[in-house]
Amino acid sequence: MNVHPALVTGFVPYGGRRSNPAAEIAAALDGTTIAGVPVVGRPLPVSLAEIGDRIAGLLEDLQPRVVVSVGLSPGEAVIRIERVGLNLADFGTADNAGQVALDEPLLGNGAAARWATLPIRKIETALLEAGIPARISNSAGTFLCNACLYTFLSLADEAREPIACGFIHVPYMPEQVAEMLGVVKRHGRQASGSDVASMALATSTQAVAIAVETALRETR
Amino acid sequence: MNVHPALVTGFVPYGGRRSNPAAEIAAALDGTTIAGVPVVGRPLPVSLAEIGDRIAGLLEDLQPRVVVSVGLSPGEAVIRIERVGLNLADFGTADNAGQVALDEPLLGNGAAARWATLPIRKIETALLEAGIPARISNSAGTFLCNACLYTFLSLADEAREPIACGFIHVPYMPEQVAEMLGVVKRHGRQASGSDVASMALATSTQAVAIAVETALRETR
Amino acid sequence: MNVHPALVTGFVPYGGRRSNPAAEIAAALDGTTIAGVPVVGRPLPVSLAEIGDRIAGLLEDLQPRVVVSVGLSPGEAVIRIERVGLNLADFGTADNAGQVALDEPLLGNGAAARWATLPIRKIETALLEAGIPARISNSAGTFLCNACLYTFLSLADEAREPIACGFIHVPYMPEQVAEMLGVVKRHGRQASGSDVASMALATSTQAVAIAVETALRETR
Amino acid sequence: MNVHPALVTGFVPYGGRRSNPAAEIAAALDGTTIAGVPVVGRPLPVSLAEIGDRIAGLLEDLQPRVVVSVGLSPGEAVIRIERVGLNLADFGTADNAGQVALDEPLLGNGAAARWATLPIRKIETALLEAGIPARISNSAGTFLCNACLYTFLSLADEAREPIACGFIHVPYMPEQVAEMLGVVKRHGRQASGSDVASMALATSTQAVAIAVETALRETR
Repeated sequence: MNVHPALVTGFVPYGGRRSNPAAEIAAALDGTTIAGVPVVGRPLPVSLAEIGDRIAGLLEDLQPRVVVSVGLSPGEAVIRIERVGLNLADFGTADNAGQVALDEPLLGNGAAARWATLPIRKIETALLEAGIPARISNSAGTFLCNACLYTFLSLADEAREPIACGFIHVPYMPEQVAEMLGVVKRHGRQASGSDVASMALATSTQAVAIAVETALRETR
Repeated sequence: MNVHPALVTGFVPYGGRRSNPAAEIAAALDGTTIAGVPVVGRPLPVSLAEIGDRIAGLLEDLQPRVVVSVGLSPGEAVIRIERVGLNLADFGTADNAGQVALDEPLLGNGAAARWATLPIRKIETALLEAGIPARISNSAGTFLCNACLYTFLSLADEAREPIACGFIHVPYMPEQVAEMLGVVKRHGRQASGSDVASMALATSTQAVAIAVETALRETR
Repeated sequence: MNVHPALVTGFVPYGGRRSNPAAEIAAALDGTTIAGVPVVGRPLPVSLAEIGDRIAGLLEDLQPRVVVSVGLSPGEAVIRIERVGLNLADFGTADNAGQVALDEPLLGNGAAARWATLPIRKIETALLEAGIPARISNSAGTFLCNACLYTFLSLADEAREPIACGFIHVPYMPEQVAEMLGVVKRHGRQASGSDVASMALATSTQAVAIAVETALRETR
Repeated sequence: MNVHPALVTGFVPYGGRRSNPAAEIAAALDGTTIAGVPVVGRPLPVSLAEIGDRIAGLLEDLQPRVVVSVGLSPGEAVIRIERVGLNLADFGTADNAGQVALDEPLLGNGAAARWATLPIRKIETALLEAGIPARISNSAGTFLCNACLYTFLSLADEAREPIACGFIHVPYMPEQVAEMLGVVKRHGRQASGSDVASMALATSTQAVAIAVETALRETR
């Protein structure tokens, strides 16, 4: 029997940070079962050069029915369900492999943008009903998170069976902000209010599980 | 034997909101024991006319050793430990009794300001070490939270035995923000990023407990 | 002789506001000459039902070489040069004709997104060199501003001669924020820091003129 | 005849910045006449060790009737009229003399706080009526700006004739933000929206002139 699992990916730490809630969420959900479907959680490298092959391999190996990719959005206060991925990489801060990108397409002849194929409005409603702050976002940025979303959508488009793909941005974990504030305190720079928002990891993890469940129900 | 308890006060809901994490924290800690000292948790009315008598009554009845008052700071992302209370009430939005105030002193001949007598730096350090985002704040605003802090400090100053008093602002609970976002969604206004920060009630409650514990250890 | 002018469009007031810097910028630049090319400034209606015909009419009547559309971004602090328009209308706050839209495409079979065809990096550089705060933005929102950008790009794509099109978001005028703060003061709500940013109209107008000039030089 | 002038002070550049709108405003107003009264504009050093003597000297030499001190508030979007100065210095980022301070009083036996003696509500009203975004602020921070305000108020309190003293925080100049954004662009860090607000120097200067005029009319 060939079971198509739900895939949850989460980026590893980057930008000098020691942890990333995205990787922790993927690890926490790995091996669980949601709506009767096995969940596979996998870390993703924060490397533009590596991410394409990694995503292609995951799709081929796992043949998932649903993909929910997760990334950190520093300073964000709520769960952000991404609506669209752009065919664009533009980041001056190097990724973990030391690469920067300036206004470059991800895919030479690719469409300018691809819509997430997760049921984003139903996920937003389900999260709000569960008491979890969430909103739909119209920009996944131009760093690896967007690259992940666009790449999954492009490759899934060529798959034999439909795969619902999307991306969820999560806030810092409280512990990360506490560490930042401690460093700031020792070094004397003042952190502004909007950079220090966080969400309990349990809540972010629950949000991703709800997104998976909502997507599985819709794609049954 | 006369045991001087730790008092935790929390404001009731106001401004059209159905809940207030401050009141929930006070209720959650009521009846607990911290560092061997009984904790009394009490709600406070969001009414400038009533708060003075209420505070005087609590001090007289309970003769607390430590007072940690708690209030909601809408949009705030971290625990804020207040450093100072001003002799000022200035709010155009009516309190729960329908009162507004414009640039009015709280106490006719009172000092312009009073320093919180809690060990605020030690509390900040203890919170950050516990992984809870926190910072010292130099303004408790000019609404009921500041009035509470200034009034406790003024009345405690006249007490026979020293009372360490202070105020802690806490963020929204996630459920409050989820409800706001749902309302916004139905009514079509966009919430800005900085207004929707939240903190799990368990974390805010733990923060207040740590503040109480730190204060009790310092005032032994 | 057929001169292809530069077209600057600016939205009229909306959302209960009495003015809109966008319309004022279009009016201010109308009739001027930039880099030897006549500039035509035109107001645009804040109406999803009307904007398509209006844009088609402007392109047909004027046959512009360059189009710089301008809109207000409430709370924005700097000039935002938009990179991309989405095939999407999603707004719960009614436009001036009373219409709302929920996750609707602008064009039934249109591409998910279209890249602005203005030289956005060169415009960003020219603005920063002129001392005007500016940045490239990856989301023009999902209201009329985005609809304007996407529609111009779609229709320009079918024109006989190339038309460089793009969109610039501008901050409030200081007078608008002063009026808001006065209303807030009388009604007692506190405005948060990030909602009250503004830019002098002369500076925003200069920014749009520089964008036009940069585009004209690039498309000569 | 002994004419008591209006004194406008403005801090010099600090924190690695090459300019400070505060010093430029003081220089611009120096030698002007407002409401028939000569204005003296003077720079102030960003040094906790030097500022007390400097302020004492200015008060003794000039015997001003009104003092409006001006400082930069990085990221602030509007004119902020300070209500109160605290007897506190607390900054981990060194001042221009290399000094830091942790929770230190400015004046050993000084009052916890002193109210600004400028007519702050009338200034707020005058600014809003002039179309300049402005609000009253309840915290001047804990760096040199607050030290300046508290020190002027303390020393003025001992003067033979009444001196109306206060402090105004102004936003960045647009050119400063443009420079920051250019540096950010070259180095790849993303500036957040709330850090990049600015105000035209002409507007900030006009705001300070209106504050001086309002104070002079009130203290006639």
